[in-house]
Amino acid sequence: MDLFDKINKNIGGPIGQHQKWSHGYFSYPHLEGEIHPHMMFNGKKHLVWSLNNYLGLANHPEVREADARAAADYGMAYPMGARMMSGNTKHHEELEDSLAVFVGKEAAYLLNYGYQGMVSVIDALVDRNDVIVYDAESHACIVDGVRLHMGKRYVYRHNDMESFEKQLDHAQRIVEKTGGGILVITEGVFGMSGAQGKLKEIIALKNKYTFRLLVDDAHGFGTMGLTGAGTHEAQDCVDGVDLYFGTFAKSMAGIGAFIAAGSHIINYLRYNMRSQTFAKALPIPMVLGLKKRLELLRSNPQLREKLWTIARALQYGLIQHGFDIGVTNTMVTPVFLKGDLTEATSLTMELREKHGVFCSIVVYPVIPKGLIILRLIPTAMHTLDDVQHTLEAFSAVSAKLTEGKYKTNTLSIA
Amino acid sequence: MDLFDKINKNIGGPIGQHQKWSHGYFSYPHLEGEIHPHMMFNGKKHLVWSLNNYLGLANHPEVREADARAAADYGMAYPMGARMMSGNTKHHEELEDSLAVFVGKEAAYLLNYGYQGMVSVIDALVDRNDVIVYDAESHACIVDGVRLHMGKRYVYRHNDMESFEKQLDHAQRIVEKTGGGILVITEGVFGMSGAQGKLKEIIALKNKYTFRLLVDDAHGFGTMGLTGAGTHEAQDCVDGVDLYFGTFAKSMAGIGAFIAAGSHIINYLRYNMRSQTFAKALPIPMVLGLKKRLELLRSNPQLREKLWTIARALQYGLIQHGFDIGVTNTMVTPVFLKGDLTEATSLTMELREKHGVFCSIVVYPVIPKGLIILRLIPTAMHTLDDVQHTLEAFSAVSAKLTEGKYKTNTLSIA
Repeated sequence: MDLFDKINKNIGGPIGQHQKWSHGYFSYPHLEGEIHPHMMFNGKKHLVWSLNNYLGLANHPEVREADARAAADYGMAYPMGARMMSGNTKHHEELEDSLAVFVGKEAAYLLNYGYQGMVSVIDALVDRNDVIVYDAESHACIVDGVRLHMGKRYVYRHNDMESFEKQLDHAQRIVEKTGGGILVITEGVFGMSGAQGKLKEIIALKNKYTFRLLVDDAHGFGTMGLTGAGTHEAQDCVDGVDLYFGTFAKSMAGIGAFIAAGSHIINYLRYNMRSQTFAKALPIPMVLGLKKRLELLRSNPQLREKLWTIARALQYGLIQHGFDIGVTNTMVTPVFLKGDLTEATSLTMELREKHGVFCSIVVYPVIPKGLIILRLIPTAMHTLDDVQHTLEAFSAVSAKLTEGKYKTNTLSIA
Repeated sequence: MDLFDKINKNIGGPIGQHQKWSHGYFSYPHLEGEIHPHMMFNGKKHLVWSLNNYLGLANHPEVREADARAAADYGMAYPMGARMMSGNTKHHEELEDSLAVFVGKEAAYLLNYGYQGMVSVIDALVDRNDVIVYDAESHACIVDGVRLHMGKRYVYRHNDMESFEKQLDHAQRIVEKTGGGILVITEGVFGMSGAQGKLKEIIALKNKYTFRLLVDDAHGFGTMGLTGAGTHEAQDCVDGVDLYFGTFAKSMAGIGAFIAAGSHIINYLRYNMRSQTFAKALPIPMVLGLKKRLELLRSNPQLREKLWTIARALQYGLIQHGFDIGVTNTMVTPVFLKGDLTEATSLTMELREKHGVFCSIVVYPVIPKGLIILRLIPTAMHTLDDVQHTLEAFSAVSAKLTEGKYKTNTLSIA
């Protein structure tokens, strides 16, 4: 049959099936104006809780100046080519050195994008004799990296240490036969639930099993730990994390990522990651902008303190108001509600249209049927007034949800 | 065993094994100064033939102004988030519309990076019942996309239509059983050999077989065809290419890429490409800079004419001087020489140190033992004097190679 037949006939995928009514409002919205808790959506000002600008660096005057100056000095084209061939600069190398020091590793390597970077880190580390053991709620980029693996892989129930040890034990028996090694992959902060990965408990099992630990700390880098170095710092287990992956898309308000580890491992990865060998380097305006961001992140602990003030006020308030925020022990704040798709969309529209509160919504099939998750991302730029307004708005819509008032959709998209 | 043992003990991979002496010179060189045929390497001015700045847009004054203004207006952070969630803007959408019109398709979708974009395009199009048929010299990003595929895949000998039809026939027999479809993948311009993919001959087989054709035109976009729309335009087979992939890393002098196809297919892909759904959007300074690049690319055919003037002079001159440039029928210009690794490195060093000519070198194990490829990328910024100087330098080192004078390495890296 024609390959396109199934696309022409099918429902468009889990999220795409809704695009006729959701596109431009629930999906692919335009958030306009400068990155800030108050932005324009659909022509009206909204209080936004869906940007990972944790420390507010996106529009920090020194960041904006650094970004503007670097683009003026170099343009967006430089350097041309992959790092290995013709795209290397001293600025890329200097940023790598600073990142390594900051996260407590010997060396670091910049990745031109986090997603393909993680895929290639995993791909470069394992061969068919090796076994991967990974958390069931791992980010898509980890899953895609694991999908490339030719050997065995075992997935353990999210953050469940009993399940983890069981799968580790399976892996151990395999590598005894193949002569390979074990790579364990988890996250520092899970972006949906806000739960920290149990790094310390995983590392404790190194006494009993031989494995290396790769941690995706996309949300934890810059937000977690005494100095903001990450979740490994927060859990006081820096040395036990063998490979530390951080992205620039969250607290660093940019694009790209890095991997940090022992120098010998980084020397190997630098020459063996396919998405880095065969694709262009991170543009230098981004690299210079990131240098400035890292400097500010390290010298302005008050930004992180402010983030936590907001996060704590928001979470404490939600609990006080009777909301279920699940197991989060980080700034990521999910609110769990019960309802069907109509209720979820009506509630989200009322939050936006009536209360001017913009947050992301997650429904079936991403999560089980009958569940609604509204995810709130606090930042250092939010105020306690923003928190208060949000608590009131959430209480109002939650009351209506409980009363069954969203069973039929009475609002129309403006 | 310890997963890191093999990294600690092994040779570092095909290219990494040489890093002790090659790093910073043959690999990871710093090319300094503005992007131009004359740049600084190792403290000395070099004539550079290894940047894919085909049309010279990287430092076009209007491009530089657009890049600088966009970064000043928005910073490098905007928009925050994946397109679908919180990272969409009208500028992304407008650029998509212009690209679609330019390459002759109904719709287009921006990809935040070419590598992961191509991987996810392939991943989203096929399921385990579908079969992929692809060219043996496909770029790494295509290979990685194919690696994710759960169904059958058949690789045909590079540009060999007999082999292609044989594999297509295998595929046909499989999908008759599975009920799936066939996806054929090739490139418009192969980046190593400079050969065009035989798009027209492939498409002709649609009379006999049912398949869809995806073309990676990374090198052809902006350089090939009457208007620069690409290799499908050059071969007069725009409609036969079902999915057209172009990157911004070459003639557009940026990062990112796009996929263009019928609107229904793009609507599907927009909602089903994992690296796009789960990773940040292309930064807006790049998007606005790309709008300007596309406008210039379309309104300045003389840039493309200049590229071809240089390419023809270079290739004609090389042939006149007795060099083997293989089967290239595009601007990509490989020079095939015979020699071992010592000879390849000595020759490359002499080209750089004595003649000031910087080009990329490809040796075993990327290509067969005993072969050396020097790859030259002509651009609209090169001059006929640059070509003349290069022909003289190549003749000088080639004569010494033939005389066996590079058997021992007598140069030391400065």
